[in-house]
Amino acid sequence: MENDRYYGIDVGGTTVKIGLVENGVLLDKWSVPTDISDGGKNILPDIMRSLPGPAAGAALAVPGAVLPDGTVNRCVNLGWGVCRPSEEFTALTGIPCRVQNDANAAALAEQRLGGGKGFESILFVALGTGVGAGVVLDGTIRNGARGAAGELGHLCLDPRDTAAACTCGHYGCVEQYASATGISRLAAQAGFPGMTSKQIVDAAAAGDAALEDVVDRACDALGRGIAGACAIIDPEAVVLGGGVAQAGDYFRLKVQAAFDRYCFHACLGTEIRLATLGSDAGMLGSALYAMG
Amino acid sequence: MENDRYYGIDVGGTTVKIGLVENGVLLDKWSVPTDISDGGKNILPDIMRSLPGPAAGAALAVPGAVLPDGTVNRCVNLGWGVCRPSEEFTALTGIPCRVQNDANAAALAEQRLGGGKGFESILFVALGTGVGAGVVLDGTIRNGARGAAGELGHLCLDPRDTAAACTCGHYGCVEQYASATGISRLAAQAGFPGMTSKQIVDAAAAGDAALEDVVDRACDALGRGIAGACAIIDPEAVVLGGGVAQAGDYFRLKVQAAFDRYCFHACLGTEIRLATLGSDAGMLGSALYAMG
Repeated sequence: MENDRYYGIDVGGTTVKIGLVENGVLLDKWSVPTDISDGGKNILPDIMRSLPGPAAGAALAVPGAVLPDGTVNRCVNLGWGVCRPSEEFTALTGIPCRVQNDANAAALAEQRLGGGKGFESILFVALGTGVGAGVVLDGTIRNGARGAAGELGHLCLDPRDTAAACTCGHYGCVEQYASATGISRLAAQAGFPGMTSKQIVDAAAAGDAALEDVVDRACDALGRGIAGACAIIDPEAVVLGGGVAQAGDYFRLKVQAAFDRYCFHACLGTEIRLATLGSDAGMLGSALYAMG
Repeated sequence: MENDRYYGIDVGGTTVKIGLVENGVLLDKWSVPTDISDGGKNILPDIMRSLPGPAAGAALAVPGAVLPDGTVNRCVNLGWGVCRPSEEFTALTGIPCRVQNDANAAALAEQRLGGGKGFESILFVALGTGVGAGVVLDGTIRNGARGAAGELGHLCLDPRDTAAACTCGHYGCVEQYASATGISRLAAQAGFPGMTSKQIVDAAAAGDAALEDVVDRACDALGRGIAGACAIIDPEAVVLGGGVAQAGDYFRLKVQAAFDRYCFHACLGTEIRLATLGSDAGMLGSALYAMG
């Protein structure tokens, strides 16, 4: 059994989601709280104690840039600096381990099993507190030379929009408009402070014209950013995930319309689809990545 | 001999450049004029008549989008509509033939033999009448699902800059600022009509402050576009080619500075290099592509 058993481990800022895959089937999944105290040094031991036994392999999906050699270049949300968590995991458990960026792992899961099923090359976009993204070409995750492939959230749309700096230190990034935080910020600018992105999108979908303008601005920015990414990699399809995308077709169709407005003419016809794996995507993708 | 002989054929709007490679060595190169009369129907026969004999393979580099199945989706400069020139070439010559976009072929040559030598993954940017680009990842050209990968020239930087429409029909594309045409347009806007991009860059390099402002604007736009592309694919290096880049380090350093201002922090350190193969890049790249 052990020869065909893999752990997919999505290490989030509050919860670690773990899945056990045997013979290609998800047999069990569970979670453990993420203990970010002491520089996150308890995270891997806590994961280890929750595992039911040995396995042929595992992969960690982490919220940070992963270099080609497996070095993780800081995970602020976990308290980790520059580290090599896959080696530490193997030292603790004896299980061979790989490491991948969480949005990239989710992209792989959505391409193989979710909203991108049937396509070999997709751009996956996760709309959460930030805008994460992952590039899968010919069925393979692209990390880039510095772990920065798929950083769609930091494609600069308008450097002159200096009202607020992005977390990256620049201005006018896609993330400043299309993340949950970005949508709330746009609503506050329009005179509706203190609303969550879900409240804003729900009110817009229910007919609030002023808030629909806010959502339109967010989708215009996101569609333009996706059009820019497609001018570089021209994937077969784009898959939208994350909390904001749970507004479903109301949101998706606005992004598709904006994409169609801005995309290079040869990219017209590229479909923007919804993700289907929800918050399991990172865990499932890391299991797939562990399997090679 | 014939078993190791390949033709690399760069089909440009005024000249077709042809190279003969045997045992991996460029033995000879020549050119024939491009006859675009009658929908470009004489182009392939003219090429055929110039070939010294049979070969194991050939590749055509063409100025248009190439779909994954080898269909060319219009080459306006050649008079070609939707066609399959590699099949026509093989029917005429008996030589197996592939087809590739010209900027993508040049990207492959620069990665293997030119400014990107030593890197497996590069973004190549060709500054000419337009802005062409090619993406090589792990030594392989990426065409994209619709032949639109590497269309950096049509990444939209500023949709509100509606002073002039891009050839693609949109506004504020990278090409509107950083192509030879774009630089001339920026100079005209600044009160210097009728200058070529070479005259503008040369005058700026010689100390003309007003024209240096124009070049700075072009390089700012190009650096921001390249930073956007690198946020998606994160190549090891960027290679700048085409006529405008012949201004050398004066131009390159300005693009590098703009890239460094706009790039995602993990991409800092990505070098912008100069192409070294000049106008042979497309011909050499198609020979490499013919060889597999």
